Amino acid sequence: MKQVYFDNAATTLIRDEVIKGMVEVMNGNYGNPSSSHSFGRSSKVLIEKSRKAIASHFNVSASEIIFTSGGTEADNLVLKSAVKDLGVRRIITSKIEHHAVLHTVQQLEVDYKINVSYVSLDKNGNVDFEHLENLLKTDDKTLVSLMHINNEIGNILDLRRTAKLCKENNVLFHTDAVQSVGHYNLDLQDIPVDFLAASAHKFHGPKGVGFAFIRKNSGLKPMIYGGEQERGLRAGTESVHNIVGMELALKAAYQNLEKEHQVVFGLKQYFIDKMKSEIPNPTFNGESENTENGTYTLVNVCLPVPPKKSAMLLFQLDLKGIACSKGSACQSGSSRNSHVLSEILNEDDLQKPSIRFSFSIYNTKAEVDYVVGVLKEFST
Amino acid sequence: MKQVYFDNAATTLIRDEVIKGMVEVMNGNYGNPSSSHSFGRSSKVLIEKSRKAIASHFNVSASEIIFTSGGTEADNLVLKSAVKDLGVRRIITSKIEHHAVLHTVQQLEVDYKINVSYVSLDKNGNVDFEHLENLLKTDDKTLVSLMHINNEIGNILDLRRTAKLCKENNVLFHTDAVQSVGHYNLDLQDIPVDFLAASAHKFHGPKGVGFAFIRKNSGLKPMIYGGEQERGLRAGTESVHNIVGMELALKAAYQNLEKEHQVVFGLKQYFIDKMKSEIPNPTFNGESENTENGTYTLVNVCLPVPPKKSAMLLFQLDLKGIACSKGSACQSGSSRNSHVLSEILNEDDLQKPSIRFSFSIYNTKAEVDYVVGVLKEFST
Repeated sequence: MKQVYFDNAATTLIRDEVIKGMVEVMNGNYGNPSSSHSFGRSSKVLIEKSRKAIASHFNVSASEIIFTSGGTEADNLVLKSAVKDLGVRRIITSKIEHHAVLHTVQQLEVDYKINVSYVSLDKNGNVDFEHLENLLKTDDKTLVSLMHINNEIGNILDLRRTAKLCKENNVLFHTDAVQSVGHYNLDLQDIPVDFLAASAHKFHGPKGVGFAFIRKNSGLKPMIYGGEQERGLRAGTESVHNIVGMELALKAAYQNLEKEHQVVFGLKQYFIDKMKSEIPNPTFNGESENTENGTYTLVNVCLPVPPKKSAMLLFQLDLKGIACSKGSACQSGSSRNSHVLSEILNEDDLQKPSIRFSFSIYNTKAEVDYVVGVLKEFST
Repeated sequence: MKQVYFDNAATTLIRDEVIKGMVEVMNGNYGNPSSSHSFGRSSKVLIEKSRKAIASHFNVSASEIIFTSGGTEADNLVLKSAVKDLGVRRIITSKIEHHAVLHTVQQLEVDYKINVSYVSLDKNGNVDFEHLENLLKTDDKTLVSLMHINNEIGNILDLRRTAKLCKENNVLFHTDAVQSVGHYNLDLQDIPVDFLAASAHKFHGPKGVGFAFIRKNSGLKPMIYGGEQERGLRAGTESVHNIVGMELALKAAYQNLEKEHQVVFGLKQYFIDKMKSEIPNPTFNGESENTENGTYTLVNVCLPVPPKKSAMLLFQLDLKGIACSKGSACQSGSSRNSHVLSEILNEDDLQKPSIRFSFSIYNTKAEVDYVVGVLKEFST
């Protein structure tokens, strides 16, 4: 059967060169990086080289990159320690953050009685900066957590503006950049974020590894205690092959960024045009149709499917070999509505099926033709 | 140069079949296990098959196995949630636990003002059960955390006795079994532990993955918040290739357990005999010479090396291509004395170099001959 993978915001195919590099590490370097002998040192060299290479993509110091088991752990590390160890008493976030941020903040609200404010969003899900500025006028020690690119609707936050606003108000700023790292250049000297979370499997790297950028002298303390790994900020033997895999994936992503950006953007644009010409009245959620404020990697389309066909749509697409997503992967197994779309769609549109299609360089225009063809059957 | 890896308690070479299986997963199954489409489901099937296979080795339910990024995270998850969510007000542990337990408990003492008691040890580092029984007579909600096999001196705790004692006293029992899982059969129906931590890279699996056994209806809550992975107990996209690698490594370990036990034990015994015949007065720390109470995988030997040679011993062994360890890997880079040996050796013996040699099926008697030959040069 034909198989089309249009769910690259959930996870991505691993590049061949990444797998190859990981296998070399697993075959040739099994020492524990904490061991002082030659086997250990060669593993230590590998992870420190990876740290340096990764840091260089963001124009930061190697010591500011802390390896984790993924983006979720990185978000948790930053948010929890900010409250527990830095004395943050207030978190400003939004209702359309990834659950790794939202559920963690809600738990901190329970555990530490912190104050949580949700910034207003416009009808497309964009941050209301006037409201944010008002929220920032506070005497409480505050942290803002807003994601760079929304994983469901693709809205791009003006990271520089947000970071500068936070800095002017003496407020800490954390961003979940899981959907942008490896897809956009980020100069973290120019953009004064304090903390950032990233995940390798979103840019054709392995699952189970990510990193937190933690700006120098932050005062953060570990969430996981034990050995002295990661400069004392994250205990546990390092997943050397996964870390090297992440480095290689990030290197490939940034080496080919311009070219691949064009290819993926071309696919998205072709998909949108095709949808508009083949299907009556599709609407695009959030900024996912916008070429300025929306990421080039995904669209979230609300389909005018008759109600009786609507319930079975994702199931039917799956039967046709098409992988896409209702909301984020974390929710797609459940029957709940997307918490993101619930914030921005009206009741009418919430009844219609909305589907996220997310693209990569491994997709083709022929796949777009096939998928739009299948969608057309359902929409008429 | 000749290279001898006698540091298998720090980490192990990954079996070829494990790497092969991981590569198959990375090439063929890149879906996100949380995605409901076919790509996602095939990844979900892989991790659930792994969970079931791993659970079967310990005679427990699949739902009682929670995948983590390693043993350290598993220890942290259990200990922190026991205090935070189960209301544990007292932890009984020992001063020779791995730092993943010891440092976590010390942090909980600071953060939650819990009471921490350290069970007395005999001169070889064995738990004083009479003292433990006395400590267990308490009205405070209590958890005992004692490791199954000590990673530095190889002492084996009577897990069944300890678990039953805890049960009789209505006290929770957690064991760090990082050095025993994959090396010993453990029937967790027969041994009533509540919680157990394990790590794949200690039994010829990949680094960056492990699991917690969490007995049904424990009431534990997550340490890392976000998506609903691991039945809501551990958020974050699963490291599918690492999980499958762990399953394959555990399968190979238990399939070949008897045979490999004999081979490794034979190497250890050959090492001990050779040491005794070639070197004047070596002593073996803890139970590492004992064939009943010490693990078959390691020895920790105190060498009668003249003081002027002693400081450079590990460095010189490294120059000769020999990988071994002073204490645990987590400390081997530092100049601190082992916290384990500090508890059991007298001042005189603490001045002499103690070295841990740990063996695997990939070692040979010829390597033992070489290493003992080198040690002989230093000891005379």
